[in-house]
Amino acid sequence: MAPIVAGKSSEAAVTDINGQLGSGLVHIRNPHLDLMSEDILYHFGLGTKTHDLPAMFSDVKFVCVGGSANRMKAFALFIHKELGYGSDQNNIADICAGTDRYCMFKAGPVLAISHGMGIPSISIMLHELIKLLHHANCRDVVIIRIGTSGGIGMRPGTVIITDTAVDAFFRPQFELTVLDKVVIRSTELDKELIQELLLCSQEISQFNTIVGHTMCTYDFYEGQGRLDGALCSFSSQDKFDYLMRACSAGVRNIEMESSVFAAMCRLCGLKAAVVCVTLLDRLQGDQINIPHDVLADYQLRPQILIAAFIKKHLGLNT
Amino acid sequence: MAPIVAGKSSEAAVTDINGQLGSGLVHIRNPHLDLMSEDILYHFGLGTKTHDLPAMFSDVKFVCVGGSANRMKAFALFIHKELGYGSDQNNIADICAGTDRYCMFKAGPVLAISHGMGIPSISIMLHELIKLLHHANCRDVVIIRIGTSGGIGMRPGTVIITDTAVDAFFRPQFELTVLDKVVIRSTELDKELIQELLLCSQEISQFNTIVGHTMCTYDFYEGQGRLDGALCSFSSQDKFDYLMRACSAGVRNIEMESSVFAAMCRLCGLKAAVVCVTLLDRLQGDQINIPHDVLADYQLRPQILIAAFIKKHLGLNT
Repeated sequence: MAPIVAGKSSEAAVTDINGQLGSGLVHIRNPHLDLMSEDILYHFGLGTKTHDLPAMFSDVKFVCVGGSANRMKAFALFIHKELGYGSDQNNIADICAGTDRYCMFKAGPVLAISHGMGIPSISIMLHELIKLLHHANCRDVVIIRIGTSGGIGMRPGTVIITDTAVDAFFRPQFELTVLDKVVIRSTELDKELIQELLLCSQEISQFNTIVGHTMCTYDFYEGQGRLDGALCSFSSQDKFDYLMRACSAGVRNIEMESSVFAAMCRLCGLKAAVVCVTLLDRLQGDQINIPHDVLADYQLRPQILIAAFIKKHLGLNT
Repeated sequence: MAPIVAGKSSEAAVTDINGQLGSGLVHIRNPHLDLMSEDILYHFGLGTKTHDLPAMFSDVKFVCVGGSANRMKAFALFIHKELGYGSDQNNIADICAGTDRYCMFKAGPVLAISHGMGIPSISIMLHELIKLLHHANCRDVVIIRIGTSGGIGMRPGTVIITDTAVDAFFRPQFELTVLDKVVIRSTELDKELIQELLLCSQEISQFNTIVGHTMCTYDFYEGQGRLDGALCSFSSQDKFDYLMRACSAGVRNIEMESSVFAAMCRLCGLKAAVVCVTLLDRLQGDQINIPHDVLADYQLRPQILIAAFIKKHLGLNT
């Protein structure tokens, strides 16, 4: 049963996503920011006084984010090569080398950043990324999360483009406690971008790609109905029933970052998409026990799709 | 205003924390686990069939966890030297080198693990750590989170030992959605261990240490009342009022992992403590702008305290 929560306020997403392409600038929704003489992006190890952010980032048009630092470095190398900048690893340095909270790599107009696991971790990264894009006067930025997930009734290796991120009660919303009030934000993603990505996937035709709801949870084990955590108080039938209810509500995969990603990007006028590969079918099991080479192949799929999308946008041959 | 939530069930912490020292084993609260022929600790890159977990870990008596991988490696090197095993960096290898989700280092009976940022990230690590300790037949394990935090009315550099972790409404509880039900867990920490740590700190007498409530939030910016995020809809007065309410409720510092850490360790019979240094006084500001050497000194304080505690337990001279 979904909780009935009092004291909530719903925030209208007044930002017209398509309207972003008018001014093209990121919408910072914080009147205090302009009053600050310096902005330290602490978890990036960057700042407005210590770094020339416009010189470093103003050409950024695509931001790709994912949980694992190794995977985002691999993506940066891959896109660097795909865009014709060569395959020399020495050209890819971690821009956030001063801290180990996140990794950041740049390949021409593409920025690749790791965000760790879970809503709080990606949310810190997004606050600082959105401010970075603002300080650097970036325009018309598209941001895509490329991740891994558990599928529901999906063959492992399927790529899912999220239309709407839903919570553990299958609601298309993200709840955040701000001071001691609960704020609710929409988690709908950009429809045009979804269709563009789906078309791209059909053109490259290397793996199965579908569009569906993505459930975003706060926990990997109990929160996703896994029977293999240190704590589990439900039966395998309870788990199966829950996942079937999720499936009936349109959920095709489960991960841990999409809701806050969708909500924050929407509020700040960033065109955003979530593209995750499924590593297993949760109706069949809980443990991720696929061979290393198969896992590596699956993890490459969202990267291949996004590389094709970026090259298409830049007018490069795919 | 705190939300009124229906559909909740309160779980009694039936585990007697002090009783742990009887059998001394970790309490796995999952009847399904014994039925599994193999357990893959996916985010550690370890498993019961691929690794001899008792041979690797059965001597572990102290587990120290913290957000940053670099900080935990530094702690492992520090404790390695403090325990008389020498200062050769080559003796400290990342046991989780097969994955970049977490780092894990071992120095004799001490295990040091990074957990990333936020409740979901530390919760994945804890599920797999608790299972690891169970599979390895570890006994009488003490687990301590050593972290950084924002203080409320505290001089930066103060070390806070948490007595109870509270949520953003100052309630001593951790809420988790399991399937579609909200479960509430106690976040009280081990009183004896708190007093022992406080005494240790008085004995080493190098920095100010106090005991107080720690507020655990899901967000670093809006969720902690910061005025310097990409989004901020409240005034500086609203922020100040909220932090003062927190202070009146006994909150002395704010971080992002203590509630689930306290709740899970309590349920599994692990003696647990949270020891965080404050990097700034949130009543004075939001940005972390202290010089690098001061930051390094502050971050060392919980490590110094825990090293003294461990050496005392092992009967080594401090």
